[in-house]
Parts: sequence; structure tokens; C-alpha cells
Amino acid sequence: MAGDDPLRMLAEHACFGGVQGFYAHRSEVCRAEMRFAVYRPPQAASGRVPVLYYLAGLTCTEETFAIKAGAQRVAAELGLMLVAPDTSPRVRLPGDDAHWDFGLGAGFYVDATHAPWSKHYHMYSWVTQELPALVAARFPAGAEQGIFGHSMGGHGALVCALRNPERYRSVSALAPIAAPSQCPWGQKAFAGYLGDDRAEWAQYDASELAARRGFETPILVDQGTADEFLAQQLLPDRLIEACKASGTTLALNMRDGYGHGYWFVQSFVEDHLRHHAALLHG
Amino acid sequence: MAGDDPLRMLAEHACFGGVQGFYAHRSEVCRAEMRFAVYRPPQAASGRVPVLYYLAGLTCTEETFAIKAGAQRVAAELGLMLVAPDTSPRVRLPGDDAHWDFGLGAGFYVDATHAPWSKHYHMYSWVTQELPALVAARFPAGAEQGIFGHSMGGHGALVCALRNPERYRSVSALAPIAAPSQCPWGQKAFAGYLGDDRAEWAQYDASELAARRGFETPILVDQGTADEFLAQQLLPDRLIEACKASGTTLALNMRDGYGHGYWFVQSFVEDHLRHHAALLHG
Repeated sequence: MAGDDPLRMLAEHACFGGVQGFYAHRSEVCRAEMRFAVYRPPQAASGRVPVLYYLAGLTCTEETFAIKAGAQRVAAELGLMLVAPDTSPRVRLPGDDAHWDFGLGAGFYVDATHAPWSKHYHMYSWVTQELPALVAARFPAGAEQGIFGHSMGGHGALVCALRNPERYRSVSALAPIAAPSQCPWGQKAFAGYLGDDRAEWAQYDASELAARRGFETPILVDQGTADEFLAQQLLPDRLIEACKASGTTLALNMRDGYGHGYWFVQSFVEDHLRHHAALLHG
Repeated sequence: MAGDDPLRMLAEHACFGGVQGFYAHRSEVCRAEMRFAVYRPPQAASGRVPVLYYLAGLTCTEETFAIKAGAQRVAAELGLMLVAPDTSPRVRLPGDDAHWDFGLGAGFYVDATHAPWSKHYHMYSWVTQELPALVAARFPAGAEQGIFGHSMGGHGALVCALRNPERYRSVSALAPIAAPSQCPWGQKAFAGYLGDDRAEWAQYDASELAARRGFETPILVDQGTADEFLAQQLLPDRLIEACKASGTTLALNMRDGYGHGYWFVQSFVEDHLRHHAALLHG
């Protein structure tokens, strides 16, 4: 590719008849090189296909979902493109690795307003606008988009969809941080990235958004009962209440004995891809 | 567990209705603590099930297959227990990390006869005898066993099965080192672990064993055409010739455009589990 091409291919691998690729580009909104993964299903060789975004959790990278979730097999069957962004910019800032749940690998999918994070940590704009535009321009992406994610990425997926229903036809989450304004992970991240203004926090709180705005298509959520973060950090009951308040259909499956990690994600990822495919192909 | 229990549970996770576990035990033959993974499918909760061993490749651990191959879904459907041993002892010896393709993570599934490796590197006896005895005693393992593997582990699986047809009813391999006596990886490993006696090497060379002994059930092999190690290290043509010589049925599938890694393994692992299940349940 030319030296000024905004898209840089890092690796591409044949996988289930399609191509699992890893890419980097110079992001305008993050003022940094940002990484993401794209799985192109076999159907993408002959036409545009719907795109399903996956947002990963704390400490993950753009590689985690591609390596651990086993979703390519299902995407190849259903004709879905999978796009998995990294979880933060990778520029170094003071204190960015002092905490595993803040800074590097923990962007929380917000547009930070407080220094020093406000210079680069514009994950919300990157994921909802800049990256989809790049994907549409450079990959055989159709107009239909869905989004899902895990843990911090479940929070991110719900927020992106609830705030942009015209961009995302479908949304789901695995063990999401369902009410970040009310749990330690979210409070720490929002205070650091956004400051003390609770009205600003509400723009990134899935339960507050679900109560106020609702969503047109059913929201699918899976949650393990043995998840070590369930009671303190994830708070799915808040999302249940919020969806009731707005008349939004929420299918919440409590999965007996499952934990928080990718052993859980891989067990139920197929259900999520089928949920999205039914809405995106519909 | 009691302090003198030979089996130590490191972690267990719910996965596809079964349990993905990681364990360690004090191995007599390796004179070291050895690690391995066991996936127990849902069917194992109510009775003994056939066991399929998976041997991993260079630099891998007992975790690699469990994390990257996506095999638990298929094992859960077919009622197979999956056992994945580590690829070497993890005791420190002089020079054990000087090379990525020898020593740590590169045991080559032989019983080393040359010092210093001969003290601990008895992977062949561990995989074929000590570990199966432990698994039979401590897990709901039925009498039927199959074995497969990838790259160095494909070599190992073929050798274990060809030398012990009474122990393994089925065997298959993904991108195996098919004739280690004739490729740089194998020559380096065999010289280091076994010395210069070519007759000793022949006991661990799948193509030589296949030509001399054959195997009763069909051998399934998948191989990517874009595998960067194909021409110099893997040499599947030697296995084709060997199986012809002994009248052994070899189903070798050349997979167009696929590389050497787990993008390839995950794409075809389901075919391998079905191959084994048909023979082990038969």
C-alpha cells in the first residue's frame, strides 16, 4: 500500500473459508494509530455483507475476540463481517498503566473530556463514526450494522446502540457493565475520563439510556451466575428495570455456573450472532 | 484435596455445558510437575466417555488448544473428553530456552536418552502411559482412546498411535511434522534428545513407522497450502508414500490458502473430532 494510505494491514489469515485480518490506521479523532480486527466471511468475496461490531472488555486488545471467542465459524455460516476494535489508544500517557481497569486497555468507549485523556481517548467517536466510515470505504461492508460486546464492551455496545439507533439495527451483550454510574469500575472510569458532572456520565450509562430512550429491536443479554463480578460491577437488574420503564424488550438469560471470561463468551457467542443475523438480514 | 494427592486442580470453568479444567500432577516418568488440560463434555456428568488426546506444537502449553481451537463446542455435541498435555517439562535445564524449537515448549514427545534432557524429558512415556492412567483414575474416561495433534504434536500423535495401536483406536493430524528424521526441526530435536543413532530416531519418525507398521483405521491429515513450514519442515509426501507402502488408508486434505497456525486449526478441528468420534463410538 502507498505510504499515505490510512489503512495498514498487519496480518491476514485464511479462516473458515474467509479472511481474519488485523489492521491499523491513523485515527483523526484519537490522534493516534488505532488497531482493529476484521473477519470477512466467504460471502464477502462476492458482495457486501452486514457488519457486526464486537467491543471487548478490560485488558483486551483487538486480537482477543478473534483468538478466543470462536465466532468466525458462525459468521462464515451467516455471512456476517465481524469488526473488533482495540479497547483504548496505545499512546503512552502519565499513569496509563497504573491501573488495569483505567487507561491502557480500558477506554470504556467514551469521548474523554478531562486531561490528559481528552487528547487521545475518543473511543466513542472512533467506534461509532470514524471506524465504520473506514470499514465501509475499505471492506465489503453493507449498510446494516449491529453491535455487541463483553463486560466493559457490553456497556460500550449498549451505549453505542442506544444513542445511535439509526446506525445500529441490533444490539446484544455478554456480561455487560449494565449501570456503570453505579459500580466501582464505571465510577472510576467516568470520574477520570469525564470529571464529576453526572449529566455527562448519564450519556454513557446503558441503564439510564435504556430507561430514557429504549430500543426498537429486542436486546439480548447473557450473564453467568458464577461470574465473580456480577453482584458488585455488572448490575443487570438495573438494565431490567430500565427496559421495563421504556417498554424495551430485553431477553436476559442467566447461565447457571458460568463465569466472566471467554469460556463463557465462546459458549454463547453463536446465540448472539444468530440474534444479530436475523435482524440484519431481515 | 489432600497434600499428597497426585492431582492438583489449577482452574475449572463452565464451558458449553461441560467443564474446561487445568491440572498439574507430580509425574514419575518426568520427575517433575506436569500440566495438562481436560475438557469434560456434558455427557461425562452421567457416565464414562471416550478420550481424545491433543498434542500441541512448538512453543505451546496445555492452555493453547483449549483457548484457540474452539473444539469444546464439538466435543460437547459428540460426547468426547479432550485431554491436552503440556509440550515439555517446565523444569529449568542449562540451555533450555536458548532455542524456541528445542527444550522448553519443544519436547517432541520422545523419551530423551541424552543428558541433561534424559532426566526429565520423557514426554513419550508420560503421554502414552502415565497420563492416561491418571486420567482413567481421576476422570470419567472410557476405555476408548484417540489421539491427534498439530505440527510437532501431529508428529507426536502419529508416533504414539502407530507404536501403540492397542491403546489408540483413531489418529489424525493437522499440519504434522510428517518425517522428522528428514527435516531441520526433527533432526535438531532428535540429535539433542536421542543422540546420533538413526535406529533410535526411526522409533519416533511417523513416516518410517507408517511404512513398517501401518494403522488399522484411516488416518486423517489436514494441511494448509500456504503453510510457511510446508516445504522444508512438514513433508507430507513422505507420509503419503509410507502409508501406500503399508496399505494404510490416509485421507490427506490440502487446504487452499491456509497457513500453519490456529486460524487453520480452528477451521478444521470439527472434521477431526467427527473422525475420531465415529471410530471411538463405533
